[in-house]
Amino acid sequence: MTLAVAGLMGAAAHAGVPKYVFFFLGDGMSTAQVNAAEVYLASKEEPLLPEGTRLSFTLFPVQGLCTTWDQFSFVTDSASAGTAFACGHKTKNGVICMDHTGTIPYTSVAKKAKEAGMKVGIVSSVSIDHATPAAYYANQKSRNDYYDISMQLAESDFDYFGGGGPIIPTGKNGDQPSSIEAAQANGFHIVNSRTAFDALQAGQYEKVWAYEPVLDSGSALYYELDRLPGMITLEEFTRKGIGLLNNPNGFFMMVEGGKIDWACHANDGRAAIDDVLAFDAAVQAAIEFYEQHPTETLIVVTGDHDCGGMSIGFAGTQYKTFYHILERQTQSYIEFDKVLTSYKAQGDDPSHLIAAVTAAYGLEFLSPEQKDALKTACDGGDQHACTTLKLALEDWEIQSLVQAYWMSMTPKNLRPTDPQTYLLYGGYEPLTMALTHVLNHKAGIGWTSYAHTGVPVPVFSAGACADSFGGFYDNTDIYTKLLTCMGIH
Amino acid sequence: MTLAVAGLMGAAAHAGVPKYVFFFLGDGMSTAQVNAAEVYLASKEEPLLPEGTRLSFTLFPVQGLCTTWDQFSFVTDSASAGTAFACGHKTKNGVICMDHTGTIPYTSVAKKAKEAGMKVGIVSSVSIDHATPAAYYANQKSRNDYYDISMQLAESDFDYFGGGGPIIPTGKNGDQPSSIEAAQANGFHIVNSRTAFDALQAGQYEKVWAYEPVLDSGSALYYELDRLPGMITLEEFTRKGIGLLNNPNGFFMMVEGGKIDWACHANDGRAAIDDVLAFDAAVQAAIEFYEQHPTETLIVVTGDHDCGGMSIGFAGTQYKTFYHILERQTQSYIEFDKVLTSYKAQGDDPSHLIAAVTAAYGLEFLSPEQKDALKTACDGGDQHACTTLKLALEDWEIQSLVQAYWMSMTPKNLRPTDPQTYLLYGGYEPLTMALTHVLNHKAGIGWTSYAHTGVPVPVFSAGACADSFGGFYDNTDIYTKLLTCMGIH
Repeated sequence: MTLAVAGLMGAAAHAGVPKYVFFFLGDGMSTAQVNAAEVYLASKEEPLLPEGTRLSFTLFPVQGLCTTWDQFSFVTDSASAGTAFACGHKTKNGVICMDHTGTIPYTSVAKKAKEAGMKVGIVSSVSIDHATPAAYYANQKSRNDYYDISMQLAESDFDYFGGGGPIIPTGKNGDQPSSIEAAQANGFHIVNSRTAFDALQAGQYEKVWAYEPVLDSGSALYYELDRLPGMITLEEFTRKGIGLLNNPNGFFMMVEGGKIDWACHANDGRAAIDDVLAFDAAVQAAIEFYEQHPTETLIVVTGDHDCGGMSIGFAGTQYKTFYHILERQTQSYIEFDKVLTSYKAQGDDPSHLIAAVTAAYGLEFLSPEQKDALKTACDGGDQHACTTLKLALEDWEIQSLVQAYWMSMTPKNLRPTDPQTYLLYGGYEPLTMALTHVLNHKAGIGWTSYAHTGVPVPVFSAGACADSFGGFYDNTDIYTKLLTCMGIH
Repeated sequence: MTLAVAGLMGAAAHAGVPKYVFFFLGDGMSTAQVNAAEVYLASKEEPLLPEGTRLSFTLFPVQGLCTTWDQFSFVTDSASAGTAFACGHKTKNGVICMDHTGTIPYTSVAKKAKEAGMKVGIVSSVSIDHATPAAYYANQKSRNDYYDISMQLAESDFDYFGGGGPIIPTGKNGDQPSSIEAAQANGFHIVNSRTAFDALQAGQYEKVWAYEPVLDSGSALYYELDRLPGMITLEEFTRKGIGLLNNPNGFFMMVEGGKIDWACHANDGRAAIDDVLAFDAAVQAAIEFYEQHPTETLIVVTGDHDCGGMSIGFAGTQYKTFYHILERQTQSYIEFDKVLTSYKAQGDDPSHLIAAVTAAYGLEFLSPEQKDALKTACDGGDQHACTTLKLALEDWEIQSLVQAYWMSMTPKNLRPTDPQTYLLYGGYEPLTMALTHVLNHKAGIGWTSYAHTGVPVPVFSAGACADSFGGFYDNTDIYTKLLTCMGIH
């Protein structure tokens, strides 16, 4: 509510050249992911109050839609999408800011901003050498060359990097010169503790590379749903960046909410929603800066593509949704995978696994008598009982979980690899995916894919030059619009 | 291409009060349905040229997004959605332009335009007493009271109705006074032949109610995919309306593409795409009028909600789409249902059914040798062979068709009614739905529901006052924006 009100009060479109430019990118965030977060917030209200639970950026005054196809496919990946909006060119899936043959490098909007005298900051909740942030400072034929990408980060003249760490700073085999040390040699002050991060102030160092010390798989920040006390948030990395970059010549800052995408690949609605909310909190930091410099600040918020084909509704719930039951989910799929790994390693008691399922997903294995008692309590007005009843597993749902359980207990090399199995679990841990699907379907969230989809994404903008981000255009146009707004060619 | 170019050349946003107002409503049309039509057009080009295959209205200069939730659900139906944008109020699913108790009637934007001296026309490709058109002229507690709704049409002082017919003009039992005769008594000239429609000219009659004589189920126009020569199109009903309504005091015209929704309920991508294209052709008629009156015309194009949770991509095709294979589909699901009914009635030879499947959906039952031969031809550059190979059924797809075949052969009262069967076929004819799913999945179209979903819908606008339709707002705001634009309160 606070976020939404602040966004509503502050945002407007202004004419003029922006000196402070924020580009927020929700990876895998299309209209469905944005709206799912709003529906989740609204579903906790009684009665439904969707207008009071808007994200900060959906209240921005200017709205656009953006096509995301790449050079060879209607469904882009994050590398070709990043090349489009960071570097202004269509390319092939997997290529970072180069042509599809990997021979012609392009120059990103961030590099041009730097050349024009602005400071530049790049922030991401996934690894800082992941495709989206890389598109701003690197040129690589393959997004998977993480070491080479992190060396290009080390060699860059940008002013601030923040978020997840580098994936392989000493190369695939750990035998290359460290990209972190190379960055230090190039003048970067490296920060990777909470204490050092909190102590960081403007003017202390010429260039800063800060990353969270406790990282999840892929050197990313933890999912917001799994975040532990003390971990540095995307919002904090953004606020710190604003403090470090603020200067009379202006700045360009790119902030990526990168794990919205990862959650959607795994069809985990609650994990995606919480990461959209964490992303929104980072946007809120920019809105607060905007409120101090309303005629000189531009904020653009968009996604690079949809992921998962998420829908607000599902065949099984028809015209209803029950997003409030997602409040009982306490862990992302990745944390439940760890529970399962430990269960298998220990040869544990199945009743422990059943308890872990309820603890993680809120799903309940109940007898008919238990269901009857809950129904009576729910009819009597006990909302907690109503939610528990909604989470009670039906026989056919249990059947799908049992099928997945046996496959999860089977060694990976013995599991079937046919198309039907892929449609069920998408290469994820079968039991985890079956649980995620059962819970999402009960809530009224549908998924069609474990990959990206091609639906155009919304663009929200506020502040100086925001008007130029209205209309329906292509993702390469974002590059041109940003440069034109900043008066750079 | 021609459509897109005309839309691009003509459209702009102008200040000032529009005298001629078009509101185009794609029922069940969200961003995915719009983009699916563009991807389909582009997939027929080689190389991919998405920028050359835009619909006329996605090139409009102003873009908005609109929430669609109704009073009690995040997923609206067409009645509560129609009440929102036609009458400015949230209400319950099923209610036409009244409060949720069905006691307080609201006044539609069309009635207010009429009171202000403008002419009014209402056009739909589904029955003219269906929820969306009804919201403009009727007030009913239930959208299913079609007879009462058509009597309110008969009593209205609007100037033009066009499109599908009334569903039950003499009531459920055929024993009520005819609403068609009541309309005649109220001054409407009734037109229901191609000859009379073509002969219609401005100035001949005070009020006109025209409907296509050859109607499909639900008294709707045929799907564009199934349309027979001579049938009046949505575009023709729109052009005729423009000719009849054009007058110095201006007009308000609502045109609904109603069967985009029906096709999406049935998860029939090609039928939906063709109806989006037919809807786009109707918009093109308005663009041509706009080009004659650019500073006095407003065109707004939107949808009332998503339907089916359609996605541009599917788990099975991952990052690829193959929309060009949909060119081989020649019939909508509703026509294939008729084939199946006839097959069952005749006790026909199964080989005839297999031939009918290939004729309707392009799906091919091929031997390994046939597939090898096609692969050789395809590798040699034979594009037709490549497409045929893409449409070859895999063993596990045939298995799903056989399962559906046996259920389709089972009398309806003996078919299972469990949730899993609903998820597979959604209450549609099992074999038809299995075929539709197999084809859509091969093309890279995913579906999550047989109902509507809650994702916000795009709003495209051009012409006088178009700027006020930018931003992210609620469907009730469309009512207010239209009235404000027209200077009516």
